[in-house]
Amino acid sequence: MNADDSCPLCATNTDAIWHNDELRVIDACHPDYPGYTRVIWNAHVTEMTDLQPAEQQRLMQVVWVVEHTLRAALAPTKINLAEFGNQVPHLHWHVIPRWQNDLNFPDAIWAGSGSESGRLHSWALMEEGLLSRVPGYQAALREALMTL
Amino acid sequence: MNADDSCPLCATNTDAIWHNDELRVIDACHPDYPGYTRVIWNAHVTEMTDLQPAEQQRLMQVVWVVEHTLRAALAPTKINLAEFGNQVPHLHWHVIPRWQNDLNFPDAIWAGSGSESGRLHSWALMEEGLLSRVPGYQAALREALMTL
Repeated sequence: MNADDSCPLCATNTDAIWHNDELRVIDACHPDYPGYTRVIWNAHVTEMTDLQPAEQQRLMQVVWVVEHTLRAALAPTKINLAEFGNQVPHLHWHVIPRWQNDLNFPDAIWAGSGSESGRLHSWALMEEGLLSRVPGYQAALREALMTL
Repeated sequence: MNADDSCPLCATNTDAIWHNDELRVIDACHPDYPGYTRVIWNAHVTEMTDLQPAEQQRLMQVVWVVEHTLRAALAPTKINLAEFGNQVPHLHWHVIPRWQNDLNFPDAIWAGSGSESGRLHSWALMEEGLLSRVPGYQAALREALMTL
């Protein structure tokens, strides 16, 4: 693995939900978005088109398994997929389950749209229920990825 | 194609940069982001995991060609890829070239981070230059997609 000493994603040694030699799948641990998962390519590359076609396919295959398992386990309104890396140019995918009453819906989670307090309250209640289902989601995800 | 009468992406009949029976590639025509391109799946499906594996691959293959051609033609600082669909749940990808002095960098383009006026000015100048290179980018993209 071609590591970059100054890159936080090269350095991070988070407990992965699942990993193999090429990539790792981690809980993003976002306080507002239960189930938010990241798929991080281990080698320090910047863009999808820096990968070989077979690598692109294997990476996206894992992203689809994450999406599929999130949908089955948590039934979100929508899945949001993003590969940005403007702050940390080390290839990683955000897989974010979204709900109609979450803090920013229908805007991007980065929009900081601000929310009315009624919505805030309904989301807090729902989030509590979702949080309790995250361990089940992660167990199902681990199992699904092992069959890849 | 299973169209939904109420869906703006089923209805839209924008001039595509390129299209085939499954998808179309359009200029997002975003006033602040020259080269911003969308890849829209023609059929009204919501998530990537609603597609068959071969369809997923063909769609992503087009996204990678867009990314590759944007990098070659416009040399952005970073490519941003996003599949959200919270507002319009009809599968489409945003492929957004980003530059270090653009209006929201390093935040998401949806962050509305606001910008200092110096940065605004430098970006306006750069954007003008980029805009003149967009037709060349689109011609190269059309050519690359034809060889798929």
